[in-house]
Amino acid sequence: MSNPEYQQRKAFFDQLLTIYGRKPVLEALQDSAMQIYKLHLADSNKDDGIIRDIKKIAQQRNINIEFHDRKALSRISKNGKQDQGVAADLQLSGYQPSTVISKDMLSSGKQRYIALDRITNPQNMGMIIRSVAASGIDGIILPRRGGAPLTALVIKASAGTLFRAPLFYCENLAKELARMQADGAQICGLSSHAKHSVFENPVSTSQIYILGNETDGVSNDIERLCDTMLKIPMHNGVESLNVAVTAALIAFLGR
Amino acid sequence: MSNPEYQQRKAFFDQLLTIYGRKPVLEALQDSAMQIYKLHLADSNKDDGIIRDIKKIAQQRNINIEFHDRKALSRISKNGKQDQGVAADLQLSGYQPSTVISKDMLSSGKQRYIALDRITNPQNMGMIIRSVAASGIDGIILPRRGGAPLTALVIKASAGTLFRAPLFYCENLAKELARMQADGAQICGLSSHAKHSVFENPVSTSQIYILGNETDGVSNDIERLCDTMLKIPMHNGVESLNVAVTAALIAFLGR
Repeated sequence: MSNPEYQQRKAFFDQLLTIYGRKPVLEALQDSAMQIYKLHLADSNKDDGIIRDIKKIAQQRNINIEFHDRKALSRISKNGKQDQGVAADLQLSGYQPSTVISKDMLSSGKQRYIALDRITNPQNMGMIIRSVAASGIDGIILPRRGGAPLTALVIKASAGTLFRAPLFYCENLAKELARMQADGAQICGLSSHAKHSVFENPVSTSQIYILGNETDGVSNDIERLCDTMLKIPMHNGVESLNVAVTAALIAFLGR
Repeated sequence: MSNPEYQQRKAFFDQLLTIYGRKPVLEALQDSAMQIYKLHLADSNKDDGIIRDIKKIAQQRNINIEFHDRKALSRISKNGKQDQGVAADLQLSGYQPSTVISKDMLSSGKQRYIALDRITNPQNMGMIIRSVAASGIDGIILPRRGGAPLTALVIKASAGTLFRAPLFYCENLAKELARMQADGAQICGLSSHAKHSVFENPVSTSQIYILGNETDGVSNDIERLCDTMLKIPMHNGVESLNVAVTAALIAFLGR
């Protein structure tokens, strides 16, 4: 199955982000800037207010609607408990599996990424995506689970940049970081308690900066594999910065 | 009246920020981190739920309560239409009139400030204050009117850093900027349409960077007096950054 056609189809499907839930899908449909590949509905849905609106807008926008039984839909949404019988595939031009970041790329010594370890606030997630996309660094690495899901809220907070941002998803962040480390990247954890400044980290390898959870920082298992922990030096007794501000400072730093 | 005692008293009163309105004042009282100098109440207030709570907490915290007639209170709040008969003086250790930024200081060529021209979102205002305080640049210049008032919302978004941040207030921003320009500072307006990058602005004078309103940018009358307009260079088709992110980038990375 490695013929060119399959590869092309795989690359296309890899760029789809499936969102779910009645409100998030309705909001995505209402935003004409959102590129939607397909709408998925459970055939058990009652034809009430919001479902009727969803269908109507999808028809107006000429978006393919597929009907599924409840079980098949939950396989598509990957969250049967919260999908409310509705899912949609968004097309994101920069959304790819992190496995495309190869050893050759990392060992060039020129790449820079920001990895997100359980960023839970959708507002922060959106602002990080917007700032990192603007900075022009190589991209954001984010695990599929454990952080804010990429819903309409995040898309809004990203000012629509989610559709173009270089986003590399993985299943298990710790494993993927260990792989990238083996492939030549320096793994840098961010912590306000660190000794060294992020502004004084002269290395010739590629770098991956890890931003941890808003409350408890970088996970223990990920901190253990970090080559170095770094801080943003702060004045006036300020103890921490908003995580999206930290992301922007790191991303723009390497200009 | 220029005896030392008067000067000292004046310096103390210059550091007071008066907030008003029942909800903002109640929230400030409930936050033990807030240093409150005095509570002002109109004697016409009915002793109902929220007023009773305000009095109770002020007594528990040993905060001086002063009663005024309606007219006197509106002179204190400077906003009789919205004060709801309640005002409080917060003590901010870094809050001073911008006139203390002298010609000597500006002509040293080493100072850097960020001036806020009608930033209206309290969340943005708080994040700007937090980031600029952390950066260690010389301070924020903000007019008393025309932007988000420094309410409990801003204090929360600043993560409490408002109490220590170097904040220089003025009555008329355009006038004060013209004065600082005459005193040797370069006035730089931020605009996404500018030709030159904020990261490539090699000057030997002190600088004041102006961040404009979230929607329509720097005011026309202020843009006219700018020595230069600068942008944050952006990639991936991103058209703008959050204003608090812009503030952080200038404060930490400029020069």
